[in-house]
Amino acid sequence: MGIGDDAAVIRPTDGKDLITCCDLMVEGVHFRTNWGPPRLLGRKALAVNLSDVAAMGGVPKFAMLSIAFTHNCSSEFVDELFEGVFELADESGVSIIGGDTSSSTDSLFIDVSVIGECQSGQAVTRRGARIGDRIYLSGSLGALALGLKLLEDGFRLSNSQAAADPSRQAVLKHLAPEPRLKLGRVIGDEGLAHAMIDISDGLSTDLWHILAESDMGAIIRADAIPIAECVRSIGAKGSDTDHLELALNGGEEYELLFTAPPENHRRIRTLAESHGLSVTVIGDIVALKRLQLDRNGAIEWLQPCGHQHKI
Amino acid sequence: MGIGDDAAVIRPTDGKDLITCCDLMVEGVHFRTNWGPPRLLGRKALAVNLSDVAAMGGVPKFAMLSIAFTHNCSSEFVDELFEGVFELADESGVSIIGGDTSSSTDSLFIDVSVIGECQSGQAVTRRGARIGDRIYLSGSLGALALGLKLLEDGFRLSNSQAAADPSRQAVLKHLAPEPRLKLGRVIGDEGLAHAMIDISDGLSTDLWHILAESDMGAIIRADAIPIAECVRSIGAKGSDTDHLELALNGGEEYELLFTAPPENHRRIRTLAESHGLSVTVIGDIVALKRLQLDRNGAIEWLQPCGHQHKI
Repeated sequence: MGIGDDAAVIRPTDGKDLITCCDLMVEGVHFRTNWGPPRLLGRKALAVNLSDVAAMGGVPKFAMLSIAFTHNCSSEFVDELFEGVFELADESGVSIIGGDTSSSTDSLFIDVSVIGECQSGQAVTRRGARIGDRIYLSGSLGALALGLKLLEDGFRLSNSQAAADPSRQAVLKHLAPEPRLKLGRVIGDEGLAHAMIDISDGLSTDLWHILAESDMGAIIRADAIPIAECVRSIGAKGSDTDHLELALNGGEEYELLFTAPPENHRRIRTLAESHGLSVTVIGDIVALKRLQLDRNGAIEWLQPCGHQHKI
Repeated sequence: MGIGDDAAVIRPTDGKDLITCCDLMVEGVHFRTNWGPPRLLGRKALAVNLSDVAAMGGVPKFAMLSIAFTHNCSSEFVDELFEGVFELADESGVSIIGGDTSSSTDSLFIDVSVIGECQSGQAVTRRGARIGDRIYLSGSLGALALGLKLLEDGFRLSNSQAAADPSRQAVLKHLAPEPRLKLGRVIGDEGLAHAMIDISDGLSTDLWHILAESDMGAIIRADAIPIAECVRSIGAKGSDTDHLELALNGGEEYELLFTAPPENHRRIRTLAESHGLSVTVIGDIVALKRLQLDRNGAIEWLQPCGHQHKI
């Protein structure tokens, strides 16, 4: 039963666990309404939650939506924002089962909760990484962080921009991130990963979350970290070091970071290919409880939040 | 598994359905921070959701909490608000399994989602009312609406007020509403009601919701509607008509309104007594698809939102 009652009723599937999460987006903190079309804002508010469910190896099923609109929001804006949410919900097989709306005196506020499912006992947490696991990353990094920078510097989407314009690509990645739903789901279903997380605070910080929860360390190789093409294209302005910095510490990338034993390598490769998605080995889980960055043979210790200490 | 991962994992209980809801409270729209202690604000943000689950005949189990704090919120304020949420969660057997926090440029936002359980297929919706059902109301009405009025007029709690001060009582009811968790749960477990809702938009509007969803009509008796003692005490200022107006149209009362067949009457009475709660029959479900108010034999048609048309 859906919207219309005090609450929604869900019949759980036998043999499944539920995965729940919520993510909050506040105007002036997470976005500005003039950064892009409200349709993309609606999609993103749902997308970031879908990414959290994917990162647990689950399948998103239901969403609830709480929005406080300001008086500056026209009815077209409101309609388009909802369209964006429902569009991505449709594409992802998610039912919107409830929500709440309110006015707001100053800031637009969007909170989305998502309920997903996974095979009972198969949720992939942050705490299962083991010595000898390889560390995998889906897609590439840096585009969303670059897109944010460009938006803050005043860059806006316009029809006159070429599709291949790297600034446009970076901004589009920021405004319309694609959660890795299929990959996350299969990794969960087949039990391929020992630990998984999505990149929301930056690679260095999110890998630290896995290491801290798993009581492990890691070595990652600087030259193995995949940098987004659009970041490399704007490279004239930035050195390789800047790109790496962006990739290590840029948040909100929504790529999946996971650790898996070597015997699963072939299956992971096949899966990634079948989904047309690149998945890269960027390092290994080790016993020494540090996060080490191997930069052409020179080892640095990385701290979360990108504070780097040379050794 | 609780807070600490991208999402929480819940193992559903065999033979149970899940009940989910969310409610959003926005500063300047639903509350002002100077109306009362932040502990009560935290409790209320959870309480209104617990009431929604109770109104479906369910038992609340889990909650997620998204809050955007302004820079005006001191760390004491933040701590006390969270204390209030956790305090009521403890009292109600609810686990806080996740959430999100953010800053906010202007207004404090609190969005709570709750997941509850009920026996599979036993959720009590708005759409089951049948001809011949009696209409029941828990507790009494008017106190929360009066409390809101007093708060808007500048009345504030203070230690110098006597506990019996009716203004204080009304304001306390508004700031710290008590969801009818036990009653809702037993009604659901024993399948006693055909339809149920909690009073959040006002008795006339919420009864309309039941009638519209059930395709039924109702007659309620003005002199049977229980008016809160504190409302009667301040009665010097208001006539019986004003009290009735407050009771019919005052929102956010969080009492349970339900319809049940006459054969369940004795059991409902016994239950209410065992929980120390008054439950009053205020009218009957009838075939004529109107909401009729019997005021000492004179019949009026009531519209939702308290628009009254004499016939």
